[in-house]
Amino acid sequence: MQPILTVGSVAFDSIKTPAGEVSRVVGGAATYFSLAASFFAPVRLVAVVGDDFGPRQQTVFDGRPIDLRGLQRVAGETFRWRGEYYDDLNRRETIYTELNVFDAFRPRIPAEFRASPFVFLANIHPALQLEVLEQVASPGLVALDTMNYWIEGTPDALRRVLARVDVLIINDEEARQLSGERNLVKAARAIRALGPPRVVIKRGEHGVLMNLGERFFAAPAMPLEEVCDPTGAGDTFAGGFIGYLASAAGMSDAVLAQAVVAGSTMASFAVQAFGVERLLRLDTAEVAARFEQFRQLTQFEPL
Amino acid sequence: MQPILTVGSVAFDSIKTPAGEVSRVVGGAATYFSLAASFFAPVRLVAVVGDDFGPRQQTVFDGRPIDLRGLQRVAGETFRWRGEYYDDLNRRETIYTELNVFDAFRPRIPAEFRASPFVFLANIHPALQLEVLEQVASPGLVALDTMNYWIEGTPDALRRVLARVDVLIINDEEARQLSGERNLVKAARAIRALGPPRVVIKRGEHGVLMNLGERFFAAPAMPLEEVCDPTGAGDTFAGGFIGYLASAAGMSDAVLAQAVVAGSTMASFAVQAFGVERLLRLDTAEVAARFEQFRQLTQFEPL
Repeated sequence: MQPILTVGSVAFDSIKTPAGEVSRVVGGAATYFSLAASFFAPVRLVAVVGDDFGPRQQTVFDGRPIDLRGLQRVAGETFRWRGEYYDDLNRRETIYTELNVFDAFRPRIPAEFRASPFVFLANIHPALQLEVLEQVASPGLVALDTMNYWIEGTPDALRRVLARVDVLIINDEEARQLSGERNLVKAARAIRALGPPRVVIKRGEHGVLMNLGERFFAAPAMPLEEVCDPTGAGDTFAGGFIGYLASAAGMSDAVLAQAVVAGSTMASFAVQAFGVERLLRLDTAEVAARFEQFRQLTQFEPL
Repeated sequence: MQPILTVGSVAFDSIKTPAGEVSRVVGGAATYFSLAASFFAPVRLVAVVGDDFGPRQQTVFDGRPIDLRGLQRVAGETFRWRGEYYDDLNRRETIYTELNVFDAFRPRIPAEFRASPFVFLANIHPALQLEVLEQVASPGLVALDTMNYWIEGTPDALRRVLARVDVLIINDEEARQLSGERNLVKAARAIRALGPPRVVIKRGEHGVLMNLGERFFAAPAMPLEEVCDPTGAGDTFAGGFIGYLASAAGMSDAVLAQAVVAGSTMASFAVQAFGVERLLRLDTAEVAARFEQFRQLTQFEPL
């Protein structure tokens, strides 16, 4: 069980879905990631919040092995985001994004965190992701998420950081955009040529496709009767995935496949309530039971 | 290994995809189904063709255990369809559908076929599907495919035949339309309430979701670098699925899961060339090897 350093956003989210609405709840990629990963391994969180992020907000991290010594507190307002989902939950509209204190964020990795064996760079400016890597001592595994905004806007910086990454975790549309290939097999190969030898493609309700060179592994999403709020599902997946790797001995293809299922398991819980709500009242027995449900959902005998 | 009776269309297809174009090749739901199923069990085909369907066209069935005594030949032209696919292969446009001799088709089940233990009713008018069931002696398993045209146009006849069906095999959009539910878990339950205790939902490049009451089974589609032509993939899936069931001893949940993978295996070949081309030069060793590839793609160890 090795510690994981993660750098990304902690935010206040306001979310509207067909199931309801919440206002100003604690969210952000690094929050979802840390909560999910902390079920498997200790997490070191580096992020920034404003002075409106008080002890009450911070309780989301309570009782979990999440080290907050890298959480910078500065004067001003915390990053805010508001999104609305349409009926089928596959499309959402961003109503506003207020970077606030995040706008001037420069990740400072505390000395105690610099030898972290696992690093997850959540979706932030690729130049900042590079700054993180400059501050850490050759980690065993670097994983990275990014988005269309950086793929379009800062392709050179993104390529520089991709060259130093072991696992890229992105969604299908981003994989297509980054590679210029519609076909996901070709897209994965083109992305591997940019650096990351392992590519994990998140397909939302259609599950996950992982490419490890010649080898592919696919996991469906858990069929759920009610999906309340998809916000953070991708970061929660990444948390379960990297968390599982950090908890495992070695990193064989078999362990990577289990990690995909661990990530899918965590994401399947996240979407069942608004924001991080379901992750906050989750226990390890439920995680183990749903992992086993994934086995029942997918396993079959040889011919 | 029990025989399968299938009733549906044999057609001349003209197909354009980003990979190329073919004209007037032998297609039709019953053709794809029969070829795929014949890898696992003997097939009894009931369909109609015109006098333009000669011995040369009929060679597609050569060398396979497909009994053509139910293939009616009448004066006139064979059913013709022309479709064009767009860049991402997920959308297609029907350029024309000429029913021709299929317009007056009334299925007549030869006496030798009436005791068929497995029946697959391909996508035709539900009143004709009912006529088939009137002519057969209580089969062990009846499976049915249908489409939006009948769901909208002949809902009463469709409900009557659904009440007599053991397995419904349809695509995701049809499942949503038939049930009025967007969520596929709810859609499957609503469909089971109409009769079929087993619902198999085809999701194209996203794989297959099978519902057996409380139990779900999901299989991804095989990641393929080149998809040439998706025409007939759904009927090919159905052929592999029902064919495998007819070849197995019993019909446990485990056998049904293997059948989904057998169907996915056959469909993954079908899309690799135009029309039935790839199915015609397929051998059982290739089928077994790709079934094993599906295992490598999806299997993982317990926690």
